[in-house]
Amino acid sequence: MTYCAGLSLRDGLVMLADTRTNAGIDDVAHYRKLHVFEYPGKGSAALAAAGNLSITQTALSLLAEGISSNDGEIHTLETANSMFHAAQLVGTALRIASERIGLMLSQTNISAQSSFLFGGRMHGGPIKLYLIYGLGNFIECTDDSPFFQIGEHKYGRPILARSITYETSLSDALKLGLISLDSTMRSNLAVGMPIDVFALCRDSLKPNLNLRIEASDPYFCSLSERWSQALKAAHNDIPPPPYAMSW
Amino acid sequence: MTYCAGLSLRDGLVMLADTRTNAGIDDVAHYRKLHVFEYPGKGSAALAAAGNLSITQTALSLLAEGISSNDGEIHTLETANSMFHAAQLVGTALRIASERIGLMLSQTNISAQSSFLFGGRMHGGPIKLYLIYGLGNFIECTDDSPFFQIGEHKYGRPILARSITYETSLSDALKLGLISLDSTMRSNLAVGMPIDVFALCRDSLKPNLNLRIEASDPYFCSLSERWSQALKAAHNDIPPPPYAMSW
Repeated sequence: MTYCAGLSLRDGLVMLADTRTNAGIDDVAHYRKLHVFEYPGKGSAALAAAGNLSITQTALSLLAEGISSNDGEIHTLETANSMFHAAQLVGTALRIASERIGLMLSQTNISAQSSFLFGGRMHGGPIKLYLIYGLGNFIECTDDSPFFQIGEHKYGRPILARSITYETSLSDALKLGLISLDSTMRSNLAVGMPIDVFALCRDSLKPNLNLRIEASDPYFCSLSERWSQALKAAHNDIPPPPYAMSW
Repeated sequence: MTYCAGLSLRDGLVMLADTRTNAGIDDVAHYRKLHVFEYPGKGSAALAAAGNLSITQTALSLLAEGISSNDGEIHTLETANSMFHAAQLVGTALRIASERIGLMLSQTNISAQSSFLFGGRMHGGPIKLYLIYGLGNFIECTDDSPFFQIGEHKYGRPILARSITYETSLSDALKLGLISLDSTMRSNLAVGMPIDVFALCRDSLKPNLNLRIEASDPYFCSLSERWSQALKAAHNDIPPPPYAMSW
C-alpha cells in the first residue's frame, strides 16, 4: 500500500509520500516512491507513485531511457519543453508499463492499477501538479481543489479537505500533509515511515526541500503526539450533545 | 453508500447511521439503516445495515418472520434468550439473504456484500455489540477496540481511533460519533443526513436515546462548524516544520 499527497498552492508545491510496500502482510519492504528530478537552470519536478511496484518502476525506467515519438525522436523529461509535455511523457510511460505488465497480471488476481502524482516547473513556466492515471490520461490541480491524493487516501483526507486552501502557506501545507500521513499510518499498517518530502517555491527552479523524515524525527514525533492532544482538547471544547436521554 | 458506527463502552452503547442510499450517482434516496427493537421488560437492541439494500431489507424481513431451527421451531429476536443467540439469528438471516440474492446479483457487477452492526442487551445480560458479516459469522466488540464501523468507514476512522477508549463517556462517544459522521459526509456525497442515533446505558433495558438528527439540527450544524474551527486552531498551535528550506 502507499499514500502520496500533492498540494499545489499560491506559494508553490509540496509533495509527500510514504515508503512502505507490501506483497501480502508478511512481505513488507521499503521503497522510495517519491522521485525527484533536477534539471539545473531549467527546472525541477517530482513524481510520486502508487499501485503495482513492477509497473511504476518500469514506467520510471522507460522515462529514463526516453519515449520514442512518431517521428522517431527520443523524448525524456529533460527534453520536455513544458510541464504539460512532461506530463504527457509520464502518462505515455505509465500506459505502456500498465499495458505490458497488466497483460501478465491478468492471469492472477493481482491488481495492475497504478497512478502518479507529477508536479514541478520547467523553463520558467508556472508550477503544475498532475494526477496521472494508468491509462495515461491526467488531470491538473486547480485553485478550487488545490490538492491530490493517490493510494490509501481516505484516512488522511478529512484534515486536508477541511484545512487546505489555495492560500495556505507552504509551511502549513507541509505540516498538514504530515498530519494527513500520520492519520493514515495510524489506521493502515501498509503505509509507513520514513516519509519523503519535496517542496518547490513559486519562483524557484530547484527543489527547496528534498528530504527524508525518519520515524525517529523529533519534529514528526512531537507533531503526532501534539495532534492527538489537540484533537482531544478540540472535541472537549465542543459542548455535549443536548439530546435528552430518557431513563 | 452508507456509514454506520457502533461504540461499546463501560457506560453503555452508542450506534449511529446515516440514511443516504444510492444506486448510481443519479439515483439517490433516503432509507433508515438503523433499526431499533424494543422488548419491554426484556431488553432492546439496534441493528445498523451496510451494503446491498435488497439483501439487508430481506434479512430484516426474514428476522421479523422468524428463522426455523432444525427442530422446526421458529426463532425471532424476541424469543432469543441472549444477545449471542440473537446475533446468531441475525447472522443466519443475513447469510440466507446474501446467498439467495447474491445468486441473482452474480449475473451483474453489482456487489452482494452486506454487513450489520448489532448491539443491545437482553434478559439482564451484559450489553454486547457484534459485527456480522455476509456469510453469517460475526465478531464481538471488546474493551481493547471498543468500536466497530461498517460501510464507508475510512474518512471517519482517525477521530475515533485517536479518541475513543473503553472509558469514554456516552455523551463524548455520541459527540465523537457525530464528528466521525460529519468527516465522512464532507468527503463522500453518498453518505448523508439525516443521522439516526441509538444509545443504551449500561443498566437500562430500554433505549435511552432513539433519535433522528436532521440536517437543520442546530447542535449538529454548530458541531460541524466548531470542529472545523477547532482543527484549524489545533494545527496552528503546532510549531512550523523546522526543516530548512534551501533557496
